[in-house]
Amino acid sequence: MAGDLHLLVNVTGTGYHQAAWREDGQPTGAFVDVGYFEWIANLAERGLFDAILLPDIPFQNPGIAHAPTQALEPTLLLAGLAAGTSHIGLIPTVSSSHNAPYNLARRILSLDHASGGRAAWNVVTTFAQGAAANHGQQAPADRAARYRRAAEFVEVVIALWDSWEEDALVADQDSGEFARADRIHEIGHAGEFFDVTGPMNVPRSPQGRPVIAQAGASEPGIEFAARYAEVIYGSQLSLAGAIEFSSRIRALAAERGRDPDAIRILPGLVVVTGADEGEAWTRWRRLNRHLEDGRSETERLEAALWLEPGSLAEDLDAPIDPELFLTDAPRPQGFGRALNRFAAETGSSPRRLADSQLGGHRAVIGSPAQIADHIETWLGSGAVDGFTIVPPGLPLDLQRFVELVVPELQRRGIYRAEYPGATLRANLGLPVPASSLVA
Amino acid sequence: MAGDLHLLVNVTGTGYHQAAWREDGQPTGAFVDVGYFEWIANLAERGLFDAILLPDIPFQNPGIAHAPTQALEPTLLLAGLAAGTSHIGLIPTVSSSHNAPYNLARRILSLDHASGGRAAWNVVTTFAQGAAANHGQQAPADRAARYRRAAEFVEVVIALWDSWEEDALVADQDSGEFARADRIHEIGHAGEFFDVTGPMNVPRSPQGRPVIAQAGASEPGIEFAARYAEVIYGSQLSLAGAIEFSSRIRALAAERGRDPDAIRILPGLVVVTGADEGEAWTRWRRLNRHLEDGRSETERLEAALWLEPGSLAEDLDAPIDPELFLTDAPRPQGFGRALNRFAAETGSSPRRLADSQLGGHRAVIGSPAQIADHIETWLGSGAVDGFTIVPPGLPLDLQRFVELVVPELQRRGIYRAEYPGATLRANLGLPVPASSLVA
Repeated sequence: MAGDLHLLVNVTGTGYHQAAWREDGQPTGAFVDVGYFEWIANLAERGLFDAILLPDIPFQNPGIAHAPTQALEPTLLLAGLAAGTSHIGLIPTVSSSHNAPYNLARRILSLDHASGGRAAWNVVTTFAQGAAANHGQQAPADRAARYRRAAEFVEVVIALWDSWEEDALVADQDSGEFARADRIHEIGHAGEFFDVTGPMNVPRSPQGRPVIAQAGASEPGIEFAARYAEVIYGSQLSLAGAIEFSSRIRALAAERGRDPDAIRILPGLVVVTGADEGEAWTRWRRLNRHLEDGRSETERLEAALWLEPGSLAEDLDAPIDPELFLTDAPRPQGFGRALNRFAAETGSSPRRLADSQLGGHRAVIGSPAQIADHIETWLGSGAVDGFTIVPPGLPLDLQRFVELVVPELQRRGIYRAEYPGATLRANLGLPVPASSLVA
Repeated sequence: MAGDLHLLVNVTGTGYHQAAWREDGQPTGAFVDVGYFEWIANLAERGLFDAILLPDIPFQNPGIAHAPTQALEPTLLLAGLAAGTSHIGLIPTVSSSHNAPYNLARRILSLDHASGGRAAWNVVTTFAQGAAANHGQQAPADRAARYRRAAEFVEVVIALWDSWEEDALVADQDSGEFARADRIHEIGHAGEFFDVTGPMNVPRSPQGRPVIAQAGASEPGIEFAARYAEVIYGSQLSLAGAIEFSSRIRALAAERGRDPDAIRILPGLVVVTGADEGEAWTRWRRLNRHLEDGRSETERLEAALWLEPGSLAEDLDAPIDPELFLTDAPRPQGFGRALNRFAAETGSSPRRLADSQLGGHRAVIGSPAQIADHIETWLGSGAVDGFTIVPPGLPLDLQRFVELVVPELQRRGIYRAEYPGATLRANLGLPVPASSLVA
């Protein structure tokens, strides 16, 4: 239901902060250890999270020299977690630019069956030279082409998910009829990027069909989200920006004939907490101390904010020039404009800005009550349906959230005391969609 | 070690016999129920099998009207079984014609990490119009092109599996070095079918690298097997044929510079057993009774042997004309020649031939001692390293094998009493290969 608080957790190896693995004493191989991820999943399930979101880019990020990067393939990893969990949703990120729709539709639908209806697909179009080079391309396609392909990809995948009608499976041991051939439909897709006949060789999902998730920050991304996304987890630094984004997405979705309330907007939120505010800040400072490496504070702030070396003024507590975020320095997609706006709205200094975001996601550092205040304020505005919690270090920052913030949210009456259902759609409060192939 | 008995189990939904689902009272959804497959896997692990082999063709076989077909994607399904098992190997079948090497290499290597070194890849080139039509092709490529693609695919996959050296992972919390960039190598592959830069974004496998399995019956299939296969599970109807096949494969492998003893030849064997011979035959007859459907016995035998209607003579106990298997009727690849040879060698009648094979795999029906005799004779010949047991019905025929035949094999001193190791390579007695990328 709209108005309820929904939480995802973003799981990136040992955490979103690149020094987390140095702080928490994880065993060397945690980032490729399914047992470790199962521990995280069980923790998130104790916190009644709707789902785990696994980001992904299919190439070896050179950052591996200094921190764990995405390794195990997300659909496989999550299939490995399905048996050891019972309620939490499983959202693998998979690129629409470097896969084939039949194979991917089948894997996500298999995950959905394996988990009893807890699967989603987080659609990314992947702008990365390294990923293109692993898939026979000199360079990534341009953004417009990537999004055209993504849209066609999703249409094919949904048609394949819908190719078995609900009652196609008969399994009548007496007559010998196993399935009704007239209830299993070819999709006969012929398009710009794909020709796929179908039908899918997997029956319909226990939750109707898997959920579509997306991050959508660019213009074509927003258009894509308005058409297809049921969960949107992108970055929102300021409440004003979140309100504007939400109104725009819901209006666009309504224009496209969708129910604007059947979309869950869950922006990333980096949470650092502790027994009190001081403990939270101590944790945050300790994580950042690993990044010192002989660099000056100015140099470190420039790196944390994706600014060219030498661009910050000497006074690190004076308001930063918002125009700095509109220069050509390489930044994750959309974060330049978001930082520009946030700096202009808040008049933050470089130091304050660096403590207000991590990797482009809004960061909140404080006591459990302060974290709950932030969540309550944003939720109350109607702009968001909850958050994608981004723990800087795993499992510690997730554990503190579950043990300290969740009970506070429950005391305030804004968070569930148990899972409302057994499928991801039920927990997100999303409807079971009618089949796209049945008249 | 060569000379030891190795067993795989072929797991096709509710069994290889198309009427098995009607006999055993399986719940409707068993073929998409990971819990059901976990039960099968645990049973096979009690029987100390080396591995589960999951066949696959990526399209909806129209046979779904009458029997379960392959549904859940094999790499996903096996990832779901990794946590609930401890020793058994996991062999998904995945098509080299309808996948991309980076993605597949990553999924199989992820399965290998998730299972602690128990993964293999069963390479098939997929000659099926329905699969081609799901992947943008009017028709499957010709056999020579499929095998050229398969060979290049395997070379790329192995190079990717080898792209992290064993000691690339450092994870030094003090220095902040996580991995040694100079021990993670690009592969820079540019070929006829693929351009892949690499490196793989997953560290080296716990067993060195996953095992390569293959069925190889055609001439290009045999050449491929001799070059790459570490496990060969194709069909062998007669011992004479098996001896010839084995000599040929091992000689070809040696010519290609491989150790001919580092190949496990494990042909399919359909086993039907019971407390005594009578119980086995009762089981077999009950399964076949479901196929009667108003057809005459002649019509049913023609169907079971892939013969044109009207081709069998009236006397169903007289020797069959072996030439019938060389006509143009559609048969699974290689089975026509194999049946021709078997019929010529044995002078079998249509009735006897239909009881000697199921779907092209040799069938043995009898008491546990009779099954063990067959296994012991073939193993003793040196032609095979064991068998891929193909249960006509699951779980019943596997359960009987594990409870009745396995103890008999152990009494005879030709089968293990416990797993020799924890990885698939250790259990198959295969060496850990040196990296292909390190001088």
